[in-house]
Amino acid sequence: MKFCSTCGSPRIELRVPDGDTHARHVCAECGRVHYVNPKVVVGCLPEWEHRILLCRRAIEPRYGLWTLPAGFLEIGESVVAGAARETLEEANARVEVGELYSLVSLPQIGQVYMMFRARLSGLDFGPGTESLEVRLFEEHEVPWEALAFRTIGRTLRNYFLDRKQGAFPLRVSSLERRPPPALFPPDRG
Amino acid sequence: MKFCSTCGSPRIELRVPDGDTHARHVCAECGRVHYVNPKVVVGCLPEWEHRILLCRRAIEPRYGLWTLPAGFLEIGESVVAGAARETLEEANARVEVGELYSLVSLPQIGQVYMMFRARLSGLDFGPGTESLEVRLFEEHEVPWEALAFRTIGRTLRNYFLDRKQGAFPLRVSSLERRPPPALFPPDRG
Repeated sequence: MKFCSTCGSPRIELRVPDGDTHARHVCAECGRVHYVNPKVVVGCLPEWEHRILLCRRAIEPRYGLWTLPAGFLEIGESVVAGAARETLEEANARVEVGELYSLVSLPQIGQVYMMFRARLSGLDFGPGTESLEVRLFEEHEVPWEALAFRTIGRTLRNYFLDRKQGAFPLRVSSLERRPPPALFPPDRG
Repeated sequence: MKFCSTCGSPRIELRVPDGDTHARHVCAECGRVHYVNPKVVVGCLPEWEHRILLCRRAIEPRYGLWTLPAGFLEIGESVVAGAARETLEEANARVEVGELYSLVSLPQIGQVYMMFRARLSGLDFGPGTESLEVRLFEEHEVPWEALAFRTIGRTLRNYFLDRKQGAFPLRVSSLERRPPPALFPPDRG
């Protein structure tokens, strides 16, 4: 933020407002505090018999890699409606949204993923404008090395483990930033 | 938004960008799209034996009314950490955060509430700067007519019903805007 969106002043300071606990962008001209909060990513894990639906991304980041249909929640919709909308937009797939299954916080990038189990209403799906390809995968076909995001890999690994147990408890977790790569290879002793 | 926070221009238009599905504030000068997305409210339902902890608000909106400790999730924290922080800030109460219990979308005001069951670590709590009073309530003592928000009433009603059943499944719901009051009293026939 370089200019105040309320008054246009360039006098933006990063400081902790009185009575607050976090640093904010504050306009020194008009006093407006500009809050920035995490965003919610909603999506589905669409099931068809023993297979699950994945989309291959036609956009950056992670162009060409595979993901579950998901995207930013919009003002005006519930989390369930948002998950269904993203699945329709990215995979042209209609689903019956089921239970919340995966809730993953990404503190450093200010995102919260909420993935719902969902039942595909039919096989008439196909790539939306943000997907190159959409298809169903058996567990042994999942392209583990070509998944777009760590949240997706975590969600899918839990899902296949839980499916073997026959129960899908809500999985709540947090993904911290990856540790930086070591400057030197680890000592092999 | 009256000025572009990137370039300071007042030429802000509300329109659907190419390839998008929703209207956004777009700067006609530099082209920047300014997204606004829903915010996450995280909080706890702190339990101590058969009682639950509520806070009486010392701030607007709903000054003087009762609520569960909750507030906006911040960048840099997980949803669980945020729920614990808000409970500490508003009630000086330390908790062991348990399972997610209530997930309420408020589409029209762009909020998603995530309330976790939590176990109080002790009775050394008290009002933070945003609370007038903090106390424990038995079910029959809950001030139902003086609760601050509909989400809180819904969460507490479900909680006491579920407690009688001995199970607390995740409650996912959406609260739409209240219907406007009728201009004339309903026809009593």
